[in-house]
Amino acid sequence: MAYDVNNVFAKILRGEMPAERVYEDDHVLAIKDIHPKAPTHVLVLPKGPYTSLMDFSIRATVEEMGYFFQTITKIAERLGLNDKGFRLVSNIGADAGQIVPHFHVHLLGGKQLGSMAGDSDS
Amino acid sequence: MAYDVNNVFAKILRGEMPAERVYEDDHVLAIKDIHPKAPTHVLVLPKGPYTSLMDFSIRATVEEMGYFFQTITKIAERLGLNDKGFRLVSNIGADAGQIVPHFHVHLLGGKQLGSMAGDSDS
Repeated sequence: MAYDVNNVFAKILRGEMPAERVYEDDHVLAIKDIHPKAPTHVLVLPKGPYTSLMDFSIRATVEEMGYFFQTITKIAERLGLNDKGFRLVSNIGADAGQIVPHFHVHLLGGKQLGSMAGDSDS
Repeated sequence: MAYDVNNVFAKILRGEMPAERVYEDDHVLAIKDIHPKAPTHVLVLPKGPYTSLMDFSIRATVEEMGYFFQTITKIAERLGLNDKGFRLVSNIGADAGQIVPHFHVHLLGGKQLGSMAGDSDS
């Protein structure tokens, strides 16, 4: 899948669309989800044009990947999620319901989280 | 939180408890979840004694973290999850319902996945 430069996160990264930024450095941006599923719901994205985790894994270096996930833990700490905990989720492709074709990780916290797969019994 | 050498994943890593292994190398082990929430539900863990993503982030190098997440994408590919997609989840701490105190990532796929936070409306 080729990267779509008009996806919503690309527009936010270019400053063409607003977003509530909670963290930013040269490589990573974190913004509030506009449809939060928990009291804290932040989206963390690499600034590079990667469509998904697979694409990121293939085209980024091991150091870039490691830096990205280390930065996620730093953001979780800044958001005060360390004590009670949080969930990290990445949806890749259709079965997972990935909507925006720019790789991103959800940080969810601030309440007791339920099932991670959408099942009523789990 | 100090690492508990008697947690179930430590026992599996030492060969003291059985598990259905789907991938293994010097640094990473992937096993089938014994209470699957989706047709494919695999747990990926670093072999080092890390209690959570935070602990992994603090004590592992950037290269070790990058290698771990690159290996997850390799495992997803081997499991045939690339075409239809998959969800990656890590539960850290009490609010997320982390049960075993050894850092692990869930790989879920093989069906249309529902809410990622356990809400009925999402």
